[in-house]
Amino acid sequence: MLRAKALPASLWRALVGSPLETQRLKHEKLTKVKGLAVFGADALSSSAYATEEVLRILVLAGAAAMPLTVPISGAIVALMAIVATSYYQTVHAYPSGGGAYVVARENLGPLPGLVAAAALLVDYVLTVAVSISAGVAAITSASPRLFPYRVELAVVLVALITVANLRGVRESGTLFAIPTYLFIFAFGSTVAIGIAAWLSGDLPRASSPTEVAATQPLTLFLVLRAFASGTAALTGIEAVSNGVQAFYPPEPRNASRVLIAMVTILAAFFFGTSLLVREMAVLPREEETVVSQIARLLFQGGWFYYVVQAATMLILVLAANTAFADFPRLSSILARDRYLPRQLANLGDRLVFANGILLLGVTASALIVVFRATVHNLIPLYMVGVFVSFTLSQAGMVRHWLSTRTGRWRLQLGINGLGALCTAVVGLEVALVKFLDGAWITVFVIGSFVLLMQAIHRHYEDLKQQLSLERAKLPRPFKAHKVIVPVNNVHRGILEALRYAKAVSDDVTAVYVEIEPGAREEIERKWERWVPDIPLVVLPSPYRSVVGPILLYLDQVQREAGPDTALTVVLPEFVPRKWWHHLLHNQTALMLKFALLFRQRRLRRYKVLADVPYYLTR
Amino acid sequence: MLRAKALPASLWRALVGSPLETQRLKHEKLTKVKGLAVFGADALSSSAYATEEVLRILVLAGAAAMPLTVPISGAIVALMAIVATSYYQTVHAYPSGGGAYVVARENLGPLPGLVAAAALLVDYVLTVAVSISAGVAAITSASPRLFPYRVELAVVLVALITVANLRGVRESGTLFAIPTYLFIFAFGSTVAIGIAAWLSGDLPRASSPTEVAATQPLTLFLVLRAFASGTAALTGIEAVSNGVQAFYPPEPRNASRVLIAMVTILAAFFFGTSLLVREMAVLPREEETVVSQIARLLFQGGWFYYVVQAATMLILVLAANTAFADFPRLSSILARDRYLPRQLANLGDRLVFANGILLLGVTASALIVVFRATVHNLIPLYMVGVFVSFTLSQAGMVRHWLSTRTGRWRLQLGINGLGALCTAVVGLEVALVKFLDGAWITVFVIGSFVLLMQAIHRHYEDLKQQLSLERAKLPRPFKAHKVIVPVNNVHRGILEALRYAKAVSDDVTAVYVEIEPGAREEIERKWERWVPDIPLVVLPSPYRSVVGPILLYLDQVQREAGPDTALTVVLPEFVPRKWWHHLLHNQTALMLKFALLFRQRRLRRYKVLADVPYYLTR
Repeated sequence: MLRAKALPASLWRALVGSPLETQRLKHEKLTKVKGLAVFGADALSSSAYATEEVLRILVLAGAAAMPLTVPISGAIVALMAIVATSYYQTVHAYPSGGGAYVVARENLGPLPGLVAAAALLVDYVLTVAVSISAGVAAITSASPRLFPYRVELAVVLVALITVANLRGVRESGTLFAIPTYLFIFAFGSTVAIGIAAWLSGDLPRASSPTEVAATQPLTLFLVLRAFASGTAALTGIEAVSNGVQAFYPPEPRNASRVLIAMVTILAAFFFGTSLLVREMAVLPREEETVVSQIARLLFQGGWFYYVVQAATMLILVLAANTAFADFPRLSSILARDRYLPRQLANLGDRLVFANGILLLGVTASALIVVFRATVHNLIPLYMVGVFVSFTLSQAGMVRHWLSTRTGRWRLQLGINGLGALCTAVVGLEVALVKFLDGAWITVFVIGSFVLLMQAIHRHYEDLKQQLSLERAKLPRPFKAHKVIVPVNNVHRGILEALRYAKAVSDDVTAVYVEIEPGAREEIERKWERWVPDIPLVVLPSPYRSVVGPILLYLDQVQREAGPDTALTVVLPEFVPRKWWHHLLHNQTALMLKFALLFRQRRLRRYKVLADVPYYLTR
Repeated sequence: MLRAKALPASLWRALVGSPLETQRLKHEKLTKVKGLAVFGADALSSSAYATEEVLRILVLAGAAAMPLTVPISGAIVALMAIVATSYYQTVHAYPSGGGAYVVARENLGPLPGLVAAAALLVDYVLTVAVSISAGVAAITSASPRLFPYRVELAVVLVALITVANLRGVRESGTLFAIPTYLFIFAFGSTVAIGIAAWLSGDLPRASSPTEVAATQPLTLFLVLRAFASGTAALTGIEAVSNGVQAFYPPEPRNASRVLIAMVTILAAFFFGTSLLVREMAVLPREEETVVSQIARLLFQGGWFYYVVQAATMLILVLAANTAFADFPRLSSILARDRYLPRQLANLGDRLVFANGILLLGVTASALIVVFRATVHNLIPLYMVGVFVSFTLSQAGMVRHWLSTRTGRWRLQLGINGLGALCTAVVGLEVALVKFLDGAWITVFVIGSFVLLMQAIHRHYEDLKQQLSLERAKLPRPFKAHKVIVPVNNVHRGILEALRYAKAVSDDVTAVYVEIEPGAREEIERKWERWVPDIPLVVLPSPYRSVVGPILLYLDQVQREAGPDTALTVVLPEFVPRKWWHHLLHNQTALMLKFALLFRQRRLRRYKVLADVPYYLTR
């Protein structure tokens, strides 16, 4: 890994652990119970913030608009059912794993595939940012003293997850089962107890002011914005379809059952929360989440309240963690297809795609800092990517059925067609009503990202052709070898360089650039004494440049020697003992290297640079 | 220049102009009139803010304390006279230029010399920051709309001065005479008209509230703080003594007359301003300078008011510009004495010390940003450095007279002794009363800087010894030359590298690291077809590291070959056409270079790295 080597190695090792052998790479198979834990965290956790996002928009039209939360949530649950049914079919049609990139590329072509891939990658970054921000909100709701430190808390959480993934957290079903089932239990109890209290008529009500001043009229546009925000509840539904292979056989059947269970629980949690919000007259607040307010009222701030908050935080961290498995995996697939830098395809020494993990950690942290770890700032960016990948995935399925035309393909085509239509319409709606709130950023990023991936692909294809041995001939051997040694003095390091030069060629010349007029006498005197057998060429430099005269001289030598002579520039370099000592030396060797690199680019003629190090001991 | 080459060359050229030949380096001689313009700007310009700094402290004790401005200013003028008399003697004793560094080092030893040098360098940076901030305050006083942009304005001004100096502004007396004499005329008129109006009894008074609430009692400590702030009037007095050589002969006589004229004008301006402040009841305000308030009242905001503000701004910019001559000059002297990185001693291609100029521009800009371009934030940092160099310079003169003991040395010793004592006492006072306001920063920076310069000096001395040819022997010639070529494939770039390898040695081996199990078959097949004459060693890599196995192999080869065999690692590298394409490739060659560098450091055994570039055309 590039970064791994740049960091002091020991620090890196302490952080990520010792290397693992390639042969230890293997995959765990999951039961349905564990599968729900692994693939359900992302979807289920969105019930912690989706209702609140609806409320936050409605509250702009005053308290009177708040009960609209329930019908809007109902519409979102209906959409959820359609999308889930669509994915149910994907699970069966692509038992080897049908991520949006694969389905779109196979059925719709490379460009839609790339768009889906870009949308997914953006999505994963936002999943981390949103989930961690929501998780931190669960903590700061329970402990308001921490509210001012939410950005720092969120960044630390991302850093911890990044390190854990660099070490190689396997998607361990057993480990993941704890937070997921704790959340299902705690959140389920909250909703159930709330509904029971409502039915028995002793549901507590929030003491917050019942009349909120409207800052905007209750327009259709506002309702559409509230609906768009609420679609956050749909994120993560596609997770099961990506990981069908992880289930015990029969994989598609087990996976699709987990999908159904997951969506049922999610719908119940989301709709239940919306109902309770209406009945308890809970209003969104800056420093406490809606879910925390409901739980606090129901359990009067007792110990179970803290269990709910802790479980919410844990499942949200888990949701972020799944993105840390998905993002590096997808980017490694894209890198292998030559759409992303090949470093992203390297399996690191801990058998994880370390570069992808680092990239995700850094970008998600940057988003968290920029958007102040606040879920409702991030939601407008989030939903566009989600719906782009939904739509392309469903549209790909439509083409799939059109090309297979077997069995009940008409029904299946109808279901996926409905899914594609609904997600396309909602996606467009989200992009439009949220455009100025931040959706434009996502649209722009996805677009640029597609262009970038195409440019990368072109470069790799060009490279392959240029290096190809097809119709290549073996290059003619060199007839001679000339060595030039730039020197600025005569000292031990220079003598070592000359020793090397004499070992590799009989044709060695040293060059000296005279910067200060009159300096040549002294070096010529020393030269005569120490290395009289090597010719020394002194170059004038009226403008005090060292590099310029050497480059001109090298070009002249190469021209005179012709293309059949190899030309080596031997650079004497002393290597200081401490890194900061480098700053104390004229970096002439470095400058010469750069200059040769860029100049040669123009001249299309190469000279070999050989560094002869001389190690200082003090 | 290091930076010059890193920037795209054409941009750099457009900014600083084309290179100048060494022989064009020469110095202008100055008349007294021009000398006052060149060396007086720094000192005279401090009258634009010194009185205000006294007021700003006194106002803490309420309006009743304000009239104390006059006696405090009187004390500062007395100190000014003592310091000027001291420097008068320095001018005569060091006609070749007696900067504090030279005087302190020659008379007191290397350590006091370094302390003086550190203080001076810190001073120059602060001169730029304070002068530019004060100049911007003159602009924003006249045009309050610009007040919110003062940091940006100040940074732009510093950038402009930096570029002008990189191009090589000579200390052109004629050019500099305009702002200096315009300032003397405009500021002199203001003070004179004000005093005349006072004497004739029709001096306008400020309409600002006459009663200001005291936030602190009027203690001796507060008076001492006000005095310490006011000593800002003394900055720049030493300038003449640094540049005696620039005057027409007899240099010391001409220089000393300029010194006397300068201090007389400065004292009149400073004390006159303080008098007017008391009589006009002017109070310091955040958005308008005291001088601007006085001029606005006297000229009722007419055109001459704008002349005063413009002249003030110009002379302050000029004062900053003199630091751009002094800082690079002193740092080049220190670099030649091996106390600073030698890059600072390089005369750039425009015959200026470009690195020193850039360093000053960057640090001064940083200070301006951190301290919000506000003079009174910077003053506590400024004064400590000024007095440290004053004191060391005067103390050095005391030692000078003690060692010469000719002529009127007793009187001269007495004068410099008094100067040293006064500046030492005031300097200590400033450091103590301003310690928590920011003086601690300067004390800390000067201390660290001295330690750093000593460490740099040690390194250069060590280096000299290690590279020295005294008692050196010519190294034994190598008996053999082995070449190792790491390869990851067979392509055109690799064939070029092998062609080079065969030209420089008969003993060439290629090494391949097998990352993915089973990959060796393919490369061995290609190898057999294209380069059957070169042996290919395949190294296993269970942990997927490329660099590790190569390093181990190289060590083994070197061990077996013994110290009399030169070992070259030939690295095939393809050079992409666009810079960003670099990001798309595994930087294995780079990692190998780093690893070899650091590893060899431990092994004390060198291997030569030769890069064979292959230029991509697309």
